[in-house]
Amino acid sequence: MQRNIFNDDHDAFRETVRQFIAKEITPYLPDWEAAGSIPRDFYKKTAEIGINGLQVPEQYGGGGIDSFLFNTVVYEEIGYAAASLGGFQVHLNTVLPYFLEYANEEQSDRWFPGFADGGLVSAIAMTEPGIGSDLAGVTTTAVRDGDDFVLNGNKTFITGGINADLVIVVARTSKDPQNRRNGLSLLVVEGDMPGFIRGRNLHKIGMKSSDTAELTFDNVRVPARNLLGEEGKAFGMLAHNLPQERLSIAITGLATATAAVNLAIGYAKERLVFGKPLADFQNTKFVLAECATELQAGQALVDQALIALDAGILTPADAAKVKLFCTEMQARVIDKCLQVHGGYGYMSEYPIARLYADARVTRIFGGTSEVMKSVISKSIGL
Amino acid sequence: MQRNIFNDDHDAFRETVRQFIAKEITPYLPDWEAAGSIPRDFYKKTAEIGINGLQVPEQYGGGGIDSFLFNTVVYEEIGYAAASLGGFQVHLNTVLPYFLEYANEEQSDRWFPGFADGGLVSAIAMTEPGIGSDLAGVTTTAVRDGDDFVLNGNKTFITGGINADLVIVVARTSKDPQNRRNGLSLLVVEGDMPGFIRGRNLHKIGMKSSDTAELTFDNVRVPARNLLGEEGKAFGMLAHNLPQERLSIAITGLATATAAVNLAIGYAKERLVFGKPLADFQNTKFVLAECATELQAGQALVDQALIALDAGILTPADAAKVKLFCTEMQARVIDKCLQVHGGYGYMSEYPIARLYADARVTRIFGGTSEVMKSVISKSIGL
Amino acid sequence: MQRNIFNDDHDAFRETVRQFIAKEITPYLPDWEAAGSIPRDFYKKTAEIGINGLQVPEQYGGGGIDSFLFNTVVYEEIGYAAASLGGFQVHLNTVLPYFLEYANEEQSDRWFPGFADGGLVSAIAMTEPGIGSDLAGVTTTAVRDGDDFVLNGNKTFITGGINADLVIVVARTSKDPQNRRNGLSLLVVEGDMPGFIRGRNLHKIGMKSSDTAELTFDNVRVPARNLLGEEGKAFGMLAHNLPQERLSIAITGLATATAAVNLAIGYAKERLVFGKPLADFQNTKFVLAECATELQAGQALVDQALIALDAGILTPADAAKVKLFCTEMQARVIDKCLQVHGGYGYMSEYPIARLYADARVTRIFGGTSEVMKSVISKSIGL
Amino acid sequence: MQRNIFNDDHDAFRETVRQFIAKEITPYLPDWEAAGSIPRDFYKKTAEIGINGLQVPEQYGGGGIDSFLFNTVVYEEIGYAAASLGGFQVHLNTVLPYFLEYANEEQSDRWFPGFADGGLVSAIAMTEPGIGSDLAGVTTTAVRDGDDFVLNGNKTFITGGINADLVIVVARTSKDPQNRRNGLSLLVVEGDMPGFIRGRNLHKIGMKSSDTAELTFDNVRVPARNLLGEEGKAFGMLAHNLPQERLSIAITGLATATAAVNLAIGYAKERLVFGKPLADFQNTKFVLAECATELQAGQALVDQALIALDAGILTPADAAKVKLFCTEMQARVIDKCLQVHGGYGYMSEYPIARLYADARVTRIFGGTSEVMKSVISKSIGL
Repeated sequence: MQRNIFNDDHDAFRETVRQFIAKEITPYLPDWEAAGSIPRDFYKKTAEIGINGLQVPEQYGGGGIDSFLFNTVVYEEIGYAAASLGGFQVHLNTVLPYFLEYANEEQSDRWFPGFADGGLVSAIAMTEPGIGSDLAGVTTTAVRDGDDFVLNGNKTFITGGINADLVIVVARTSKDPQNRRNGLSLLVVEGDMPGFIRGRNLHKIGMKSSDTAELTFDNVRVPARNLLGEEGKAFGMLAHNLPQERLSIAITGLATATAAVNLAIGYAKERLVFGKPLADFQNTKFVLAECATELQAGQALVDQALIALDAGILTPADAAKVKLFCTEMQARVIDKCLQVHGGYGYMSEYPIARLYADARVTRIFGGTSEVMKSVISKSIGL
Repeated sequence: MQRNIFNDDHDAFRETVRQFIAKEITPYLPDWEAAGSIPRDFYKKTAEIGINGLQVPEQYGGGGIDSFLFNTVVYEEIGYAAASLGGFQVHLNTVLPYFLEYANEEQSDRWFPGFADGGLVSAIAMTEPGIGSDLAGVTTTAVRDGDDFVLNGNKTFITGGINADLVIVVARTSKDPQNRRNGLSLLVVEGDMPGFIRGRNLHKIGMKSSDTAELTFDNVRVPARNLLGEEGKAFGMLAHNLPQERLSIAITGLATATAAVNLAIGYAKERLVFGKPLADFQNTKFVLAECATELQAGQALVDQALIALDAGILTPADAAKVKLFCTEMQARVIDKCLQVHGGYGYMSEYPIARLYADARVTRIFGGTSEVMKSVISKSIGL
Repeated sequence: MQRNIFNDDHDAFRETVRQFIAKEITPYLPDWEAAGSIPRDFYKKTAEIGINGLQVPEQYGGGGIDSFLFNTVVYEEIGYAAASLGGFQVHLNTVLPYFLEYANEEQSDRWFPGFADGGLVSAIAMTEPGIGSDLAGVTTTAVRDGDDFVLNGNKTFITGGINADLVIVVARTSKDPQNRRNGLSLLVVEGDMPGFIRGRNLHKIGMKSSDTAELTFDNVRVPARNLLGEEGKAFGMLAHNLPQERLSIAITGLATATAAVNLAIGYAKERLVFGKPLADFQNTKFVLAECATELQAGQALVDQALIALDAGILTPADAAKVKLFCTEMQARVIDKCLQVHGGYGYMSEYPIARLYADARVTRIFGGTSEVMKSVISKSIGL
Repeated sequence: MQRNIFNDDHDAFRETVRQFIAKEITPYLPDWEAAGSIPRDFYKKTAEIGINGLQVPEQYGGGGIDSFLFNTVVYEEIGYAAASLGGFQVHLNTVLPYFLEYANEEQSDRWFPGFADGGLVSAIAMTEPGIGSDLAGVTTTAVRDGDDFVLNGNKTFITGGINADLVIVVARTSKDPQNRRNGLSLLVVEGDMPGFIRGRNLHKIGMKSSDTAELTFDNVRVPARNLLGEEGKAFGMLAHNLPQERLSIAITGLATATAAVNLAIGYAKERLVFGKPLADFQNTKFVLAECATELQAGQALVDQALIALDAGILTPADAAKVKLFCTEMQARVIDKCLQVHGGYGYMSEYPIARLYADARVTRIFGGTSEVMKSVISKSIGL
């Protein structure tokens, strides 16, 4: 069905992004996957066409756009190209919003230009070994000592952790055991700070162009001016940004599922089985019709959520529903589309194989499907 | 998520409809189910609050509304009340649109007042024993003889067939074997025409307040002025109305699934299991969160389709996607919500039991899920 | 695959049962469904071919067979005939085993002849309004007064409750609040005892030939000689019989699913769609192949469990797995087979419709699927 | 439930195999995955404990065992160890049976000692680019020229193709276009034959310790004495071996799913979420109970099929059912067990990640799930 949320500016931007992807991403993706990360100069290139700074205020070289729709175009087109640029997407979609929301003037002056011109690569470190996404269990500590916080602890599964210049670290700044939620703060650790140790690039099922790291903070002295937002308020800040973050994951899930269906349709039309195109078999038709139906439902849901997000009324429960639906749907759809490809679907050189391997994490990161269900169940009074 | 398709008029109408249902439907539903049909005076009552003639031109006593949104309000509220009024809904939602689209002035004069004031009950007879929804196989014939068509044949599964005053019958008016599609016409058979024989009220799994009949036409002389639309063009006319018909089924599917979730939430909060409310068990929370998520996806899809319908751009394939998604979802959701009710869910006096029994037909009528998949697959080039 | 659990005696008995069903059940089923129960003389007829007393000791006129395999033949053949005789099956399969296991000599003398000759109809009353299958919550009380217990309480969902001559009632005989499990006993209430009040025959989605009742016990004086087994030991007695009871439900689930697949295959071969048999469409082939595969898995599971049951080593967790798998599979398979039938599948006169309506309760009674999962999870250390 | 198919000899052999795996496979698996193949000396080691030659006649150094149960023990234990040794398993399970069935005396003398002592590595080349598993479409040709066949063509997805000393090649030896099935023969190509060109080791989603190759045959002169079985009879020979091959895939599917459930149970008991073990959450319990139930059904099915296989009565349709059920179940179960692991499940160093990546191919190779459904549907008369 016709989408009603984009105007001509979005369409023009989409065309630019699409051409950029065809020229600057698709040909290099296999190399980036082999290397386990995206080269830094890629961030410069995306900055040139304005992707990085879409929402960065204009005085810092950004677009100053107060809408998520242009970002949506970017995520959709990357997904349609059967790509996934985990570290890059976390940088723009997960980390930047914290700076946009909470950076003071001095911090804005220091960092926004780097976001806008692609000179800066960022990450966020929440998860710790053994505690998962349970923020109340964070054990990394930051103890005030003069003008600094002294940071100690371990983080894991940090997307972009190998390459980031700036890492927002969730740390415990209060020892009050009665108030585990209010003791958390966000500190911006810079890449060259002594005691900041990056572990190896973790090997994953997919998302191979994303670097994923364990990070260790061993008495890192973080100047207090690197405190992002108010001390002790990290829990609320993290919660505040979750709806947009989860919607972004849903958008990518939907876009990559769409790519999978298109790949399967193309394959089914070309591939002959027992002398006739695979596309002529009723099972192929039905399976892909089911997929197309699920895509349509996902699209309607995402578009409704995007309107709500821009209107400032996307609730955590609604964002959870959108993430849950779109990532579970992504899994079903991509699995079916891989099956259409037969043995070729299992070969990494086929994009459908990459989509499959990449997709397995979206039901986990940004809050697992189980966490989504908990959030949703509260909203219906359970 | 907030729906964006209704205005204050719709909301006010919804309130009226809701009160009407609580007073005039809910208390009587068990009686109607036992009787196997809805009493004729119910049509008069709905007409009084303007439901029947929403889209009937004003000169005939109708509302003259060129939008499906008020109808949507009616179908939704009936569904939210865990009711299903098959014959009534077919009358307004499936049959009336043919008259609205194709009745000539003389026919309009004769019949629209009865639609508007509730004096008239209608049905449509497409399906024949053994041919299902394959219109090309229709064997009922109408042979021109003077000013009449002489109609012979058998129809089955005719919702409202027992009570209808007018039955639109799909009949073959051309014997050209080369052109099976173009030989079909629509004839309006009146209840008292000689040779029009109504069979017994078929017993069904659910939809028990709907009368469903086998109809026999034994040399029924139908005056040519009862030909609806152009002779030989029925195939196209039927196809033209399908998107709205299928969207209506989807709306009902979604609304009844919504009712089921609300019933299950209510039950889960009251019912104690091992000393604590069923609602406190994680499985209950998760199952109902999954249901709420599916409802949200269905709602987004339906609302997008309603915008397209009113804009005249709802394609057959998109309507098929909406019906497929919403009726399959309805089945999954209502099944889960019944399970939440345990043994009570199997007892007919509980509304969830009625919802379950009613729901099984929506994946079949108006085109089976398999037919939907065929339609969709063509739209994606397969 | 070839089943390895039956010998020639079973096969001969199966042939007898099959002929009996064709002659004495199938033709009358619609009448029994309309009546809401099975006539008492049916029990006499089944007794004549030895069904009722298979496991009853020979001195009381039974077969004295110490194996569940002959019973299995009976349940399978009833299911294959697309029948379900809830009250009859509960009588033989759920209630009789309590008598076989726990009746003392005097009780055996009194009651076994009636089981063997079909003169006696029995039921068991566990469930109470609002407590479901949580035995620890039973509120029906039996207070010792001289040679009697005085019984007070309400039971619901009692299959066979309208017609039973004997009802085993689970009642609380101890008020010790510290030991809610050990206070339960089994009392055999006879149909004509004063104060034993049978409610109306509850209307259900399916299982329409079974009477299902609410029972009230208002100061019913039950003589102590009607205590079945040891006072205060009902919890263990009920638990002891559960594996066989659950396996029986699984057997019926599998047999009715098998019947559904056979009906669908037959229908698909006869029914023409767009000029060719429905059976020729790939979707039909694939759907029914999936069903046949699930049947095979269910059969392998049931046969393995039957061997274990006869060997006395069927654990509660394994029985729970078999019930969970077979009833969930039954639901999936019958739903698919109904869909193959299109509109006919929704008409009650088609056996597939009855199978569908009957099937919904098997995931609930004898312990819900959720209870099964709880039992299973304990067995894997969770 | 207790399995009834193994005796003490099998149990003792199982213990040996288990110890061997712990010592000789588990520690090296990450290296083999990085290398993309299993070292040749591994075949020597397995030969030492008698694995390779289980079914090879005793005069050639084998075990001469006419039962598949010992092989089953090997496949099960490899699966339980969360390993998958594609090339090795194809060598023993898919290729060797052709030699066992069809090698003449001279061929037996030449090759069986190598199978028994681990000196020989074999593969089979059926699939061609673009034709998949449709044997009737094979385009590789073998033209008789004196004492040789001259072989030309391309094969793809050949497991073990990089390392094999012997490759059974399916080639067309007759040009009769009327009889495409009867023109196929099996030729044993030796690794050093001129014109036999091995392509690169294809990169896959999983199964990373298996080498998978494209093979090219450019005028390879294969001596006629390397013809395996009768000329022109390959189609029947391939069909004959399929049941055992498919059952083997099912066994591996079931065993790896079992490994996944055990990993998930272990993880759930250790991992704390919101302060309590993940195992204590009802959702965890229910999900793993569902998995345990599916494993039990798969096990019952496999055991029944193994009895039939050893009895020589395992039909192609029954083998297809077992493969279909076990591989689809494997996918569902491993996916759920990965989800239990949260983010760790996506990290390749966790065995559950390897199980997930490996599992995706079992629904494809040895005949896709769709091919299985075609085979099954024929057996039920569709």
